[in-house]
Amino acid sequence: MADARNVLDALKEALRRLPGVGPKSAQRMAFHLLSRDREGARAIARALTQAADRIVHCKRCNNLGEEELCAICASPRRDRSLLCIVETPSDLASLEQSGAYQGLYFVLMGRLSPLDGIGPEEIHIPRLENLLDEGGVKEVVLATNPTAEGEATAHYIGELVRARGIKATRIAYGVPVGGELEYTDRSTLARALSGRREA
Amino acid sequence: MADARNVLDALKEALRRLPGVGPKSAQRMAFHLLSRDREGARAIARALTQAADRIVHCKRCNNLGEEELCAICASPRRDRSLLCIVETPSDLASLEQSGAYQGLYFVLMGRLSPLDGIGPEEIHIPRLENLLDEGGVKEVVLATNPTAEGEATAHYIGELVRARGIKATRIAYGVPVGGELEYTDRSTLARALSGRREA
Repeated sequence: MADARNVLDALKEALRRLPGVGPKSAQRMAFHLLSRDREGARAIARALTQAADRIVHCKRCNNLGEEELCAICASPRRDRSLLCIVETPSDLASLEQSGAYQGLYFVLMGRLSPLDGIGPEEIHIPRLENLLDEGGVKEVVLATNPTAEGEATAHYIGELVRARGIKATRIAYGVPVGGELEYTDRSTLARALSGRREA
Repeated sequence: MADARNVLDALKEALRRLPGVGPKSAQRMAFHLLSRDREGARAIARALTQAADRIVHCKRCNNLGEEELCAICASPRRDRSLLCIVETPSDLASLEQSGAYQGLYFVLMGRLSPLDGIGPEEIHIPRLENLLDEGGVKEVVLATNPTAEGEATAHYIGELVRARGIKATRIAYGVPVGGELEYTDRSTLARALSGRREA
């Protein structure tokens, strides 16, 4: 039989596998659930098990869903001539929540990072090339993050896209809406200036 | 059969029951576990279920553990003449981690807050009084938080303790070790000054 502290320690240890959760937060979460919301603990356990069992990656775009083909790829209402490239399913969800995009997606599940051994194969570039070669895509929207690796990834994919005679665009980076110039960092201001458009 | 987004949405919704987790963090956690650490999702689910099934409140001090009597209350090595009053099992764990206390505890599972309907009954004062009346406790260390409600709770319990001819002490509040006076707030500095001792 386990020692009195072991089940609790095991829970704290397990909660640390959540991104952004350190030892203090894990302890706070464990105590909160056990002292004040035990039904919550069971609800989270059920939701996690069900999701781990049933959620799969879309065979076309890598997005998460319950079917072989995700709801976006399967939808007849999406514009199939537009393909937006993102790094993660979270990025896809954020763009969807903006409501400003009606095309399809391709989720790289990462970004090029040769030092970490992440090359074109690891971010599913061969599958992306097949998708482009199938035809139908008229514009590829590169929405990788504005980090050095995200930029390199966008650049790399941009070349593949243009080599096929398809238009490649990059989403705009600049001062966030509601942001203030005074509190905007230098790199963002530089991007905002170089990306200026006629008013 | 559930819609493609439902299992994922249910997971995000469930994760929001964790303290300090809003919609963005819940989404990030869900995507991280499903894209990169599915075994982590299952491990957390198992640990939560096991803890929810097996962890109980100690019948003497309210601390969390696997037995009727927690490891601290059951230990023959603890000083039974000292009783430390804390608001939550987290506070108890923090004090234990300091390694500076060898007595027993009593966890209130809250603090007095008449406006929220939390009176002496809700924080187990009758049980604490029985414990004091059993005899053996020579000093009660009041370690509630230095908030208005925590202070009121400490004051209230202090009266009960002294009425029984038992010594009541309050832990020291002041400038944190490693803290700087310049960045310490006024109330803390006031406490540090009023709590000054001969050097």
